[in-house]
Amino acid sequence: CAQAQTHPNIMLTKANIAAVRKGVTLYPLLKGSYQDVKKEADRALTIPISVPLPKDGGGGASHEQHKRNYQNILACGVAYQITGDAKYATYVKNMLLQYAAQYEKWPLHPKRENSNPPGRMFWQILNDCVWQVNVIQGYDMVYDGIPAADRKTIETHLFAPIVKFIYDDNKETFDRLHNHGTWAVAAVGLTGYVLNKPEWVQMALKGTDKTGQVGFLAQVDELFSPDGYYTEGFYYQRYALLPFVIFAKAINQYEPKTQIFKYHNSILTKAVNIALQGTYSNGAFFPINDAMKDKTFESSELINAVDIAYADISPDKGLLDVAARQKKVIVSDAGLKVAKDLAAGLAKPFNYQPMWMTDGKKGDEGGIGILRWGEGNRQQAVLLKAAAQGMGHGHFDRLNMLYYDNGGEVFPDYGASRFINIETKNGGGYLPENTSWAKQTVAHNALVVDQTSNFKGNIKEASKYHPEFIAFKTTDKIQVVSAREDHAYPGVQMLRTTALIKVAELAKPLLIDVVKATSSANHQYDLPYWYKGTIIDASFKIEAVRDNLKALGKSSGYQHLWLNSENEVPANNGYVSVMQGQSFYTTCFASTTPIKVKLVSTGANDPNLSILESKAFMLSQPQATNQTFVTVTENHGQIDPVAETTSGAKSAVSSLSVVSSDDSKTVLTFKIKDKAYTITINYQDKNNFIQIN
Amino acid sequence: CAQAQTHPNIMLTKANIAAVRKGVTLYPLLKGSYQDVKKEADRALTIPISVPLPKDGGGGASHEQHKRNYQNILACGVAYQITGDAKYATYVKNMLLQYAAQYEKWPLHPKRENSNPPGRMFWQILNDCVWQVNVIQGYDMVYDGIPAADRKTIETHLFAPIVKFIYDDNKETFDRLHNHGTWAVAAVGLTGYVLNKPEWVQMALKGTDKTGQVGFLAQVDELFSPDGYYTEGFYYQRYALLPFVIFAKAINQYEPKTQIFKYHNSILTKAVNIALQGTYSNGAFFPINDAMKDKTFESSELINAVDIAYADISPDKGLLDVAARQKKVIVSDAGLKVAKDLAAGLAKPFNYQPMWMTDGKKGDEGGIGILRWGEGNRQQAVLLKAAAQGMGHGHFDRLNMLYYDNGGEVFPDYGASRFINIETKNGGGYLPENTSWAKQTVAHNALVVDQTSNFKGNIKEASKYHPEFIAFKTTDKIQVVSAREDHAYPGVQMLRTTALIKVAELAKPLLIDVVKATSSANHQYDLPYWYKGTIIDASFKIEAVRDNLKALGKSSGYQHLWLNSENEVPANNGYVSVMQGQSFYTTCFASTTPIKVKLVSTGANDPNLSILESKAFMLSQPQATNQTFVTVTENHGQIDPVAETTSGAKSAVSSLSVVSSDDSKTVLTFKIKDKAYTITINYQDKNNFIQIN
Ligand SMILES: [Zn+2]
Ligand SMILES: [Zn+2]
Repeated sequence: CAQAQTHPNIMLTKANIAAVRKGVTLYPLLKGSYQDVKKEADRALTIPISVPLPKDGGGGASHEQHKRNYQNILACGVAYQITGDAKYATYVKNMLLQYAAQYEKWPLHPKRENSNPPGRMFWQILNDCVWQVNVIQGYDMVYDGIPAADRKTIETHLFAPIVKFIYDDNKETFDRLHNHGTWAVAAVGLTGYVLNKPEWVQMALKGTDKTGQVGFLAQVDELFSPDGYYTEGFYYQRYALLPFVIFAKAINQYEPKTQIFKYHNSILTKAVNIALQGTYSNGAFFPINDAMKDKTFESSELINAVDIAYADISPDKGLLDVAARQKKVIVSDAGLKVAKDLAAGLAKPFNYQPMWMTDGKKGDEGGIGILRWGEGNRQQAVLLKAAAQGMGHGHFDRLNMLYYDNGGEVFPDYGASRFINIETKNGGGYLPENTSWAKQTVAHNALVVDQTSNFKGNIKEASKYHPEFIAFKTTDKIQVVSAREDHAYPGVQMLRTTALIKVAELAKPLLIDVVKATSSANHQYDLPYWYKGTIIDASFKIEAVRDNLKALGKSSGYQHLWLNSENEVPANNGYVSVMQGQSFYTTCFASTTPIKVKLVSTGANDPNLSILESKAFMLSQPQATNQTFVTVTENHGQIDPVAETTSGAKSAVSSLSVVSSDDSKTVLTFKIKDKAYTITINYQDKNNFIQIN
Repeated sequence: CAQAQTHPNIMLTKANIAAVRKGVTLYPLLKGSYQDVKKEADRALTIPISVPLPKDGGGGASHEQHKRNYQNILACGVAYQITGDAKYATYVKNMLLQYAAQYEKWPLHPKRENSNPPGRMFWQILNDCVWQVNVIQGYDMVYDGIPAADRKTIETHLFAPIVKFIYDDNKETFDRLHNHGTWAVAAVGLTGYVLNKPEWVQMALKGTDKTGQVGFLAQVDELFSPDGYYTEGFYYQRYALLPFVIFAKAINQYEPKTQIFKYHNSILTKAVNIALQGTYSNGAFFPINDAMKDKTFESSELINAVDIAYADISPDKGLLDVAARQKKVIVSDAGLKVAKDLAAGLAKPFNYQPMWMTDGKKGDEGGIGILRWGEGNRQQAVLLKAAAQGMGHGHFDRLNMLYYDNGGEVFPDYGASRFINIETKNGGGYLPENTSWAKQTVAHNALVVDQTSNFKGNIKEASKYHPEFIAFKTTDKIQVVSAREDHAYPGVQMLRTTALIKVAELAKPLLIDVVKATSSANHQYDLPYWYKGTIIDASFKIEAVRDNLKALGKSSGYQHLWLNSENEVPANNGYVSVMQGQSFYTTCFASTTPIKVKLVSTGANDPNLSILESKAFMLSQPQATNQTFVTVTENHGQIDPVAETTSGAKSAVSSLSVVSSDDSKTVLTFKIKDKAYTITINYQDKNNFIQIN
């Protein structure tokens, strides 16, 4: 690279130091963020440096120490730049010299597992790459404070061997079009920039053979859909995004003419937006596929992404709103700009939008539909998952539907079965129940055919197919999304159409959900709605099992379900009312055939108590060829537990029925108070896809 | 009464109107509170007056309409006084004339039940009294705005018949030393003051026979313990307090020389303080006995009590803190003073204190011990329930222990089994499961002998006896409370000692719990700890039942428990670690004999799904004469779900054992990290009750 070498020159740049130094005294968010970093740096200085021989797995002592070390290096780098105090640089120097004295002697990590290639510092090479991405940024910041001879030692005996370990010993990871590969190329590329090794940068950008078939640019081309969606889902999108954003920022810094943020139709810009659109209004990521459910856009990955997006890509004022809720910025050029504009009162509410986001490199492998209505914690959000399988972390939940309202989950997704960092729970890793339960179709608000999961739970089969997009429309009164899945169950076509519909009689939209199965053979069709709260009313008399509670099935997740009750539904319709938080959700249901309602809860065949308590009402058709389930869910009423007042405990919706349902349309009717409504879904007329009369 | 009749003269007084009118423009809390009231009044004016024939039970349409009517009358009374606008008085006049035209024709309420005497407006006379207490205050405020002829109609055909209905037709309630009686005398007494009927006031104060054996003053003498505790528990204390406070305020106004707030050793003042001390730092009442769990000191009863306590009794600055958290004051003389002093920045944190509060009219019927450590949402609070039975709403939970920490429940009480105002759940009343489950001993963190409840669940038997106070001490390092119960199980003496102990090694105190049973015969002893969260570790290998889950018993609440696992504990000790919220609670346990640990959860024999999900680990000794259970519970670790970091998942406590336990002392030892601790409880030496070495 042609540019003269200056330090620092990634997140924090020499040209901007004076402004950032001033900014940490002026703008509250930057000030607070800097104080946190400085406190961390100062605390680090009070503790003897420890560079232990790597021996423990994730969460173990040596693992945690090496992790703390890179965090301390980064914090001291920032503290050095802002204060100019040599002690921070000396700390980093001393630590890195200790690493340099040992690193080359370390063998492959003893706790390596078969699933991921081992590092030398950590049990997975991935963590080694993350270490280097962080450390090289810290090194860049203290560069001028370390004597040249020590730099030589560190660069020769630590960074060069690490870089070689990554691109050479782990060529397969480095040249892989996968987010682990992105960490690898970011580690090598960033080190190349900082140490002025154009060779490393070239390999990072274009792969070890420098042809561009792999490497960072190819990853940017390949890893996101044209809309910016990452196929593993939002939880991993957040994680995958970080090395992209950091390395892109460095590329932008060192080689601005590449216009990396505009590369491939500004795909990185889109990916940041999609990561945010993949959250509910409380900031939590929609937990499709393997996902930890408490993760929000307050995570450090999105702090980086939001700051850089605002400062280096496009100053969308809605990002300032997110930054304010993140309560933190990176102490950096970007963080300065964000904090300054926030302090100037420029923030606007983040612009959540109903959208269809395609999946697949070409955007032709299904996608995710998101409906949104209302603002803040009154927002209703509905997600229809019609994306591709999403690799190994994907769940077998084709056409799964999630519903959020009043600040939280109404029809939730279980997420992953994992207790992160809890040693006693499989060392904090994914539990066996992630496979036996969380990934199974029945763990989702998704149609289950014949009590088996999609593709019989076979990931290879599942990865061959994706759902088909049918329709996505939004108007003032209707938001609707529809998709089809033909392969999850041989001989069964599944089609789901989900809509939010605003009617004059009600303050909030109704959730309409139409699930249609078509087959020439008889099948059992189960449609669970996982719910939060307590059932307080139903159209049928619930008679829950009093004793000798039995598991509902033997496999496909059914072995984990207690069958609490099984109710015949006399007419082909009925309702279930759930009290949740301070209001009620009544789901009216109707069917083209007589169905049962099964009330189920988790806990069967769970000897280690690994599955969290969850409950569902399941619409169940024991044997039919074609089957259409329709539900209308209304949020109603108000509970004030302090005043002990309750109003509106009865739903206004009644008389739901399916008038007809075939390949061309589904027609349903219901009443709101006395007013009759007819909804027609025209599967074959996309210009007139849904009608309300 | 001698004083000349002025209007208004209860909460809002003529002399103070000018100041309150000014105050609603000056002090934020009063301003906001008034805006709410005015909005309510203005909304009332837009809706046609409706005075329906009483026909529905609690939560039903006519019930809710009559309730709204008194709220509207009160709101319009305030609005009239502040604005001087005649329309509010006219509204009240018109509504009361409609009542006056109908009231005398109404028969006893058709939805009457046997448990409570019926009203004419509502299904219980209690609600009629509440109606009158509110309406007469509203009437007092609009008095000067209603023509004399209309007043005469209203007083003759509405208030006089209501008053007579209460003191004459319902003499039994009126002359009863019970909180329903307090509402009755307050209704009659307030009406007497406002309408200048000294006869009614006299009856209210001294009973229909005016001898003073019953009536308000006798109720003040009888209904609280000398410490101010109300025997039904804090949830009902809050409720019982309101008519006392309102009527006392009126007495203070009309007959200040009685010094009613100083009457009976300032018992009403103490009662207000105890109501607040009966909350956790999140404001929620400790839900002993029948109690709705979401109730907090933000309830309107405590808004009244706190405002009056501050303004008319004693200006304790901690009450201002509570008022600020109530976010509301009464628009009244008292509310003005509170809001003014709050605006002046005079608030201090409410002074939560460890205390022993006696129960019983003479203070000799046991009591409630409360331990407290720390401030705000870091506060640890422990409650030992050693009070008398508490009448019909009492639970069979002698020596029950509750533990709160980190802003919420750790070892919770189930509270009442009731869905307030939910028509489909027994009309919002107490459910059958309140008797079969919530009141039973096993539903509590209380010792159960032979799988039966205290006193075999017989309320008459239980009401004859109360626990005995043993000790209550607090120092810088130790807070301890101890009590004994000899009658709950014939031939078994139970003794529980609960302490918070601060040791140098740990940031927060440990909860020590020693439960001792003494008997000459063999018994089964079960000690459940109801917990929130998820068990993530135990000293024994949990093997939960995989299928065919069975109820643990047939009666006494055991019929509602699923036995999820039953574990032998090899040595006489072990531990259970629970992840709750963002940290962990490890309970180390030890016993004088080999025990089992049963994991149980609710849900068996609950056909209508009325019991909320609850879980316990139960220390269980199948057969022993004497038995001591000891537990040490540590709060440890930190989980940050957004950063996905966890620290301190292992407890520092180990090697717990019971060295000895007899009538004179229990000695237990444990280690914190490597440091050994011995705790000695000297049951017979109250000056040296607990020692730590
Ligand atoms: Zn899932
Ligand atoms: Zn209870």
